[in-house]
Amino acid sequence: MKNTQVIFKSRPEDFPSEDNFEIVQSDVPQAGEGQVLRKTIYLSVDPYMRGRMSTMRSYAEPAKLGEPMVGSTISEVIESKNPRYQAGDYVLGLDGWQAYAASDGKGLRKLDPAQAPITTSVGVLGMPGLTAYVGLLDIGRPKEGETVVVSAAAGAVGSLAGQIAKIKGCRVVGTAGSDEKCTYVVNDLGFDVCINYKTQDLKEAFKAACPNGIDIYFDNVGGDVLDAVLKRINVHARIPLIGLISQYCDAKPRPGPNLGSILSNRALIQGMIVFDHTDRTPDFLRDMTQWLREGKVRYREDIVQGGLENAARAFIGLFEGENIGKRIVQVAPDPTRKEKR
Amino acid sequence: MKNTQVIFKSRPEDFPSEDNFEIVQSDVPQAGEGQVLRKTIYLSVDPYMRGRMSTMRSYAEPAKLGEPMVGSTISEVIESKNPRYQAGDYVLGLDGWQAYAASDGKGLRKLDPAQAPITTSVGVLGMPGLTAYVGLLDIGRPKEGETVVVSAAAGAVGSLAGQIAKIKGCRVVGTAGSDEKCTYVVNDLGFDVCINYKTQDLKEAFKAACPNGIDIYFDNVGGDVLDAVLKRINVHARIPLIGLISQYCDAKPRPGPNLGSILSNRALIQGMIVFDHTDRTPDFLRDMTQWLREGKVRYREDIVQGGLENAARAFIGLFEGENIGKRIVQVAPDPTRKEKR
Repeated sequence: MKNTQVIFKSRPEDFPSEDNFEIVQSDVPQAGEGQVLRKTIYLSVDPYMRGRMSTMRSYAEPAKLGEPMVGSTISEVIESKNPRYQAGDYVLGLDGWQAYAASDGKGLRKLDPAQAPITTSVGVLGMPGLTAYVGLLDIGRPKEGETVVVSAAAGAVGSLAGQIAKIKGCRVVGTAGSDEKCTYVVNDLGFDVCINYKTQDLKEAFKAACPNGIDIYFDNVGGDVLDAVLKRINVHARIPLIGLISQYCDAKPRPGPNLGSILSNRALIQGMIVFDHTDRTPDFLRDMTQWLREGKVRYREDIVQGGLENAARAFIGLFEGENIGKRIVQVAPDPTRKEKR
Repeated sequence: MKNTQVIFKSRPEDFPSEDNFEIVQSDVPQAGEGQVLRKTIYLSVDPYMRGRMSTMRSYAEPAKLGEPMVGSTISEVIESKNPRYQAGDYVLGLDGWQAYAASDGKGLRKLDPAQAPITTSVGVLGMPGLTAYVGLLDIGRPKEGETVVVSAAAGAVGSLAGQIAKIKGCRVVGTAGSDEKCTYVVNDLGFDVCINYKTQDLKEAFKAACPNGIDIYFDNVGGDVLDAVLKRINVHARIPLIGLISQYCDAKPRPGPNLGSILSNRALIQGMIVFDHTDRTPDFLRDMTQWLREGKVRYREDIVQGGLENAARAFIGLFEGENIGKRIVQVAPDPTRKEKR
C-alpha cells in the first residue's frame, strides 16, 4: 500500500497550472506512540489557497515547496495510538493533498456523520459558512429593507451570505459568471436578482437591480464588480472584504489602492465627513482647549491678505500645497486683534 | 457702500482657476424684520470646497452657479433686528464669499473673542479640529506605542491629528510637500519623522520611518501616499479616510477602486479572515443548523471525482468559475454516504 501525495513543486506567476504540482508515491506513514493514522476521504479546495502558493506577505505562511499541497481534509481514522481517537472516527484536519497522514492528533476535530453529512464540515457548517455568517452579520450589519449585493453568489461563501441576508429581510442582488449560475442563485437560493457579470453591462444592471442604492456589498471578487458597486453605494454603506478572486492570479498589482493588503491584514478603511459627528463637539472642545492650554497642541494660521479679490487665488493655492496650517482669507480688519499682521 | 461678491461662475474640469469666479459689486443688503446684517471679517478656504464646485454625487448639494461662492465666514454683526444678536457680536456663519450678508440668523454661532481668537473657530477649535479629533480617536482608535502616519501633516487637519496621536503615546510619521513643511512638522509640532513625498522615495522612506509597520493611516490625500502606506500596514490597521486632496482635481476617475465614493458616502471597507472569528462558531452553528432544518438555507456541493490525480485540476477550476457551491475533491469512498454519486 502506497501513499499518493500531490507535491507543491513550483509557485505560479499568475494562474496556477498542473505544472505547479507533481504526483509522487511514498510509503504510508506509521502511527507512532500517541499518534493517529488517517485516510483522506475528501479534500477541500478553496480560493484562499492561491495565496498560500505565493510568497507575498500575507496572513499565513506560504506553502512550502517540495511538500504536499496544503488544505483541509476530511478523513477516517484507520489506526490510533492516541486515547482521544479510535479507528472508524471521522475527523476534519489539515492533512493536505495526500492519501494518508499520521500525527499526534493536534488540530483534528471529530465529525459525527449522524448529525450532518461529513462534507458539510468544509462547507455550509464549516469555514465557508462561518465566513458568510460573520462577514455579513458582524461587518455588514444588515438592517431589514436594505439592499445587499453579493459577488460570486453561486460560490461556497456567497451563496450562504446572500441567503442569510434574505433571512434578515434584505433585498439581495447577486453576481455570477454564467446564466446557469444566475438561475440557480435566483431560483434555488432565493436571491431577488442575479447579474451575469460576463454578459451584462454592470453599470446598467446595478442601476436596474438596486433602485435604492447599495447598503452592503459582500465582496468575494474585487476588480470590476467592486468598481461598479462603488458607484452606487449609499451613505454609511458597509463593504465586508472577504475575497478578491478576480485579482488573486494577477502577476502584478493593479493600479490604484491595492485592497489585497486591506484583506490580508483585516484592515479597515472608513470614510468620514465631520458633519456627521457634531455630537462629539463638547468632548472635542473640552480636550482641545485643555491641550492648547497645556501647550500639547500647537497650531499655525495662514491668514492671506488681499481681501475678496484674492479669495479665489488663496483657495486655488490649497491644491498647490501653498499653506502651512489653516488658510484663512482676511476680508476686513479684525477689531479683536491687537497686533498688526 | 457696495457689497463686493465673488460669484461662482463656472465649474472647473480639473484644477480650479480664477476664471471660475467673477467679482461683482451689488447693494449691501438691508436687515429686514427679525434679521441680522453682518460684515465679513474672515473667509475660511478649505479643500472640501473643490467638491462643491462639481456636480458629482456627493454628501452635499453642489454650489450654485451665479451665486457667491460658498464657505464658512467669521463676521461682525453691524445691525440686528433679531433679539438674539446685537451690533458688535462676532459670529461664525456660512455667508460665502461676500463682504456683507443678511438673514434671520439661522445657522449663526456667536463667538467670544475673550475665550479664544475668533479665527480659531474655523481652525483648531472648529471644523478642522473636530475632524482631526473624531477621525483619529473614533475611527483610528490609537493605542500607546502604535505607529500613526498622517498625510498633509502641515495642513489644518493633519497637523492636529498628528499631535493628538502624540498625546496618545504613538509614534507619528507625517508626509508633506516641502522641506520647510517637514521642518515645521517635526520641530514645531513634534512629529517623530516627516517625509517629503515630492523628493523622497516613498517606499524606502516609509520603510525607514515605520520599522514596526503602520497601525493607523490618517489619510488626507489618497493617491501615491495611500498606495505606499498600504504596502506597510499591520494586521488590524485602521485607515480613517478624511480627504483625497491629491485626487480632487482629477478630470477623470483614476483606475482601480475609487475611494472618493467611500469618503463621500462615509462608507466602510473591512477586510476579514475567518480565522480571527472562531469565537463566533457556537452562534454560527446554532443558527445555521436551525436555518438548514427550517429550509431557509440551501446549499450545493460540487464533489469532483478523479481522486488526488485530479486535485490540481479541480483547484485550478475555481479560478475559471467552474463550480456551483462548495467544491470538494473525493479521494476515497465515503462510507457515510448511502447514495451513489
